[in-house]
Amino acid sequence: MSDGNVSQLSVNTIRTLAIDAVQAANSGHPGAPLGMAPMGYVLWQKFLRHNPAHPEWPGRDRFVLSAGHASMLIYSLLHLTGYEAMTLDDIKNFRQWGYHTPGHPEFFHTKGLDATTGPLGQGAAMTVGMAMAEAHLAARYNRPQFPIFDNHTYGILGDGDLQEGINHEAAALAGHLKLGKLIWLHDDNQVQLDTPTDKAESEDTAARFRSYGWNVLKVEDGNNLDEIAQAIEQARAQSERPTLIQVRTVIGFGSPRAGTSKAHGEPLGAEGVAETKKALGWEYPAFTVPDEVAAHMNARARGAQLEADWEKLMADYRAAHPDLGKEVDALLARELPADLMAALPGYEEGGKAVATRTASGDVINALAKVVPGLMGGSADLSGSTKTTIKDGGEMQAGQMDGRNVLFGVREFGMSAAGNGLSLYGGLRPLVGTFLVFADYLKPAFRLSAIQMQPVTYVLTHDSIGLGEDGPTHQPIDQLAMLRAVPGAHVIRPADANETAAAWVMALEYDKGPTALALSRQDLPILPRNFDGVKKGAYVVRDAENAQVILLASGSEVSLALDSAAKLAEEGVAARVVSMPCMEVFREQEQGYRDSVLTPGVRRVAIEAGSKQPWYEWTLGGPVIGMDGFGASAPAKVLFEKFGFSVENVVKVVRAAL
Amino acid sequence: MSDGNVSQLSVNTIRTLAIDAVQAANSGHPGAPLGMAPMGYVLWQKFLRHNPAHPEWPGRDRFVLSAGHASMLIYSLLHLTGYEAMTLDDIKNFRQWGYHTPGHPEFFHTKGLDATTGPLGQGAAMTVGMAMAEAHLAARYNRPQFPIFDNHTYGILGDGDLQEGINHEAAALAGHLKLGKLIWLHDDNQVQLDTPTDKAESEDTAARFRSYGWNVLKVEDGNNLDEIAQAIEQARAQSERPTLIQVRTVIGFGSPRAGTSKAHGEPLGAEGVAETKKALGWEYPAFTVPDEVAAHMNARARGAQLEADWEKLMADYRAAHPDLGKEVDALLARELPADLMAALPGYEEGGKAVATRTASGDVINALAKVVPGLMGGSADLSGSTKTTIKDGGEMQAGQMDGRNVLFGVREFGMSAAGNGLSLYGGLRPLVGTFLVFADYLKPAFRLSAIQMQPVTYVLTHDSIGLGEDGPTHQPIDQLAMLRAVPGAHVIRPADANETAAAWVMALEYDKGPTALALSRQDLPILPRNFDGVKKGAYVVRDAENAQVILLASGSEVSLALDSAAKLAEEGVAARVVSMPCMEVFREQEQGYRDSVLTPGVRRVAIEAGSKQPWYEWTLGGPVIGMDGFGASAPAKVLFEKFGFSVENVVKVVRAAL
Repeated sequence: MSDGNVSQLSVNTIRTLAIDAVQAANSGHPGAPLGMAPMGYVLWQKFLRHNPAHPEWPGRDRFVLSAGHASMLIYSLLHLTGYEAMTLDDIKNFRQWGYHTPGHPEFFHTKGLDATTGPLGQGAAMTVGMAMAEAHLAARYNRPQFPIFDNHTYGILGDGDLQEGINHEAAALAGHLKLGKLIWLHDDNQVQLDTPTDKAESEDTAARFRSYGWNVLKVEDGNNLDEIAQAIEQARAQSERPTLIQVRTVIGFGSPRAGTSKAHGEPLGAEGVAETKKALGWEYPAFTVPDEVAAHMNARARGAQLEADWEKLMADYRAAHPDLGKEVDALLARELPADLMAALPGYEEGGKAVATRTASGDVINALAKVVPGLMGGSADLSGSTKTTIKDGGEMQAGQMDGRNVLFGVREFGMSAAGNGLSLYGGLRPLVGTFLVFADYLKPAFRLSAIQMQPVTYVLTHDSIGLGEDGPTHQPIDQLAMLRAVPGAHVIRPADANETAAAWVMALEYDKGPTALALSRQDLPILPRNFDGVKKGAYVVRDAENAQVILLASGSEVSLALDSAAKLAEEGVAARVVSMPCMEVFREQEQGYRDSVLTPGVRRVAIEAGSKQPWYEWTLGGPVIGMDGFGASAPAKVLFEKFGFSVENVVKVVRAAL
Repeated sequence: MSDGNVSQLSVNTIRTLAIDAVQAANSGHPGAPLGMAPMGYVLWQKFLRHNPAHPEWPGRDRFVLSAGHASMLIYSLLHLTGYEAMTLDDIKNFRQWGYHTPGHPEFFHTKGLDATTGPLGQGAAMTVGMAMAEAHLAARYNRPQFPIFDNHTYGILGDGDLQEGINHEAAALAGHLKLGKLIWLHDDNQVQLDTPTDKAESEDTAARFRSYGWNVLKVEDGNNLDEIAQAIEQARAQSERPTLIQVRTVIGFGSPRAGTSKAHGEPLGAEGVAETKKALGWEYPAFTVPDEVAAHMNARARGAQLEADWEKLMADYRAAHPDLGKEVDALLARELPADLMAALPGYEEGGKAVATRTASGDVINALAKVVPGLMGGSADLSGSTKTTIKDGGEMQAGQMDGRNVLFGVREFGMSAAGNGLSLYGGLRPLVGTFLVFADYLKPAFRLSAIQMQPVTYVLTHDSIGLGEDGPTHQPIDQLAMLRAVPGAHVIRPADANETAAAWVMALEYDKGPTALALSRQDLPILPRNFDGVKKGAYVVRDAENAQVILLASGSEVSLALDSAAKLAEEGVAARVVSMPCMEVFREQEQGYRDSVLTPGVRRVAIEAGSKQPWYEWTLGGPVIGMDGFGASAPAKVLFEKFGFSVENVVKVVRAAL
């Protein structure tokens, strides 16, 4: 970095914008951006391929600030490189209502971010998914002389990111897949929120990463721009292994609290800001961007050129490979075939009973033929979750075009990677495990929702119906947990036909994740009603002048039907409503909702899980659910013992009338 | 192991019991116990200090089969060593209703287990807590010549345990704390459920563990009993570092599927069982325990002697150190002082507003003086969660008597360690982080509940009231998630006094975990009503002939009170109910519940989170909650913008009447 003075001035502009903003908000984390500013500057100024005028340009490098509390670093960089939506006014109103500068970077909120970060460990784990996406699409679609997918993925991590368990999962997966274009910079400041890091850890991080097969580099002086640049060059010069660059920095550099935990999460105070600026030799008023810095860092011309070059490449690619060109365009636009349902298997009412996980497997394979972006895998439960795309090949280093990822027993890392695969663009990732292990991936599911990413979670073995594996494997609380996440859809289909419709709903919903809760056990085939499923709930069996509405989902819909038949014999008119997706039903117009759940009619809900989500619909009517954990025994025994029997439903209905 | 023939016969007895049981159940995992049997045998026969007649003996070694799907290994060992409750009939009825042999080991269900396992990674992580407990109690209570706390903690891990992120957190913490009496045996069979492990991982596990500061040993032949014994001896001979012993085994040893994924999760079939027995040279009928094996492995005499020796030591300790003896006895019995409330700070109604996290911090420090078992820490948020016991000292290697654990940014590992600390006995661990990061620890919270362990989760920053940190840090779905867990108590106190009562409830509840949801922001002090809090819900402000009941928790109780006052001005009589704990209120008798929530009176609930849990109480009445994620701005702005204002509450109430 030979442009010495303006470089240093630029670094200090990043720093002073950060501390001025934190001070104005009287809230935030000044220490990290002070220490990280040099690496942020070098990376964005010298390496990062992006176009401020078009933040979504597919050919860009990806950059994720995993240490999201250092958000002012990226806001400063966005402003200085010329992202229009990131104004100086936004920076002056850091952490205030209605501005683009929330406390932690929010993907859905601020143009120019590649991910939402803040929940530690996940940002870095998402970069693994992004790097997988790049390698996968490159392997599938690049052709000689047409490297249309060809970008690096960068992450900046703090000590906390490295302590989180997901770091192990993500780094191990990246090492296994030899993601050579993934580069992590570790802000190695040796200080965490409570204490110096050596009070809470003693690991040799470089050795740990080498054990995963990573390339590990070290920058001794995190203020030395040349040293940082050389390390990044070195990382980029190889493509065999992901690289961790440990950059030794000083938290709160220049401030009176430099090198201490005090610099971490509190504003420096007016005096502290003044002293810091003095130490940095900074003589401008607050929120100043010196003209030479503005000119030096503005990346709009460079970005426009980069994108124009890529567009040219794409145009030539389309000419040379017209079919592939169309497929890539459709994929990047996430276009779906006009009539997805037509591509799917249908199941005849009363035909052979099928587990909904099995139906899901069939549907995945049918969809994979017409939705090229569909890919993913499971956390070492592919046989059980039926997530394998049969002709899709296995993703491995050297065969990255495989559409089936063997994620290993890494539910959380898998799901964060799923978010990264989705954020990269074009792909429609699916991830799978048992519903009970949704617990392990919950933080990533929430980030799917908060980032509005259409990741499909295939969660099988969805109740005590899994039988002998027992309480640790039987979900009780998981449906309530997932349904409480804003913006997520949770669909629990009652049979194979509802499963097909559920998959279409998942692909058509592009504002958040969909969780499919699927049975281990076979379920009878019900009358087909795609429209009903797609409205979230519908009447499966009606009764004239219904005295009671039996509401159920999944495997309990058949029980509700059997119970209604029994009740009819006994002279009680019962309607049965299948409610596979509460979130979608909630959004239907009042008229439809009232036609399904007629006001004034007593309601009883049945679901082999926590009762919590159902009271919204029963309005105080009884819920037949699980009050405690399950047990280990064959499924039939468990359903009987826990009250999921016609006898018990009839009893509860009679008591409620 | 010189007793050659009977040793081998014993190993094969374990193996054949396992495969016979899996075959009888037609469900389960035969492969792992076939491979692990030799290490299980050597460990239990030669090293493990336990007393089958008294599974809870505090002086015993701890043993956790983290690879819980291999449950038949431990059931066989329990039966063979003489645990009365584990009969041959239990083994013949593996995975059946009403027997002590569930699919995965369930601590609450089967005597002789030290933990519930099956959710991968957690068993091993709990052993870290157990080893911490032993070291902590030894440092506090052992005296020269009185090593009253002096046991080893053993875990057996599968490949899946090592892939899980929590393994990183747990192993890093154990290495940092130099838990020298912790020994993990890795069942290194190189096969996982989907594939050989090398399809999903490439890590050098030994190098990874060395990077954490572990001692790593290798057993090349997992069938060589002497080699296994030597490795365990070697691990025990040092106490400086935890030890990982990598034992190279063959999954499904002896069976036609040996060494393949097929051996993992399916019964071998009648023919497969026959072939396996032939390969093992086994000539007995199914479920046979040869007499010489029964005699050889029965550990009742040895166990009784071990416990008698320890009881003698304890008696001498009590004589030499009477005060300490009393404290240890009380601690191991988890006795609480008669009137805990008396030890706690009181807050005057209308006095200075206090954040409930701050009140919690005061209460913790008051309780720590009278509850010696209270200890724990936070995931690098001690300053924010106020979890520090001020005179408690910091737990570090060489100063393990510290009552404050710096868990690092490892929410899940912390919570699993919390379960281990609790399972060890005597201690009353607390763990702390932000409520939103309950997502990261959810799987351990569920295991606290399933194991009925009284771990207290201090979860602060409990709503959008945390303000500027924004959506990623603002819990919405977390209260619903935690409340859905059977057996757990979730308490969200409305002020400092409710917080004191909540802590007493947490300590008095010994059938499961308690989650305390605490505010970042200051809350006004309400009229004190300990009895009301301890019933889960109570009337804070009544009104004659109430037309509406306003239900709220935490910070929204004050809003409900202000709204009721406004409604009164407008001629609407509103009762205000504070409902800090739904689970406890649900258990009150009908009369009390009806006195609080008078039948027939319209109800409106207010909580700045998911609405889902509240419909049970409003019976269809409106809930003022959060439908989406929060935003980054000062708390006051957010409450106003999201409808938590007197104006909006009044509007909703008027619309509901």
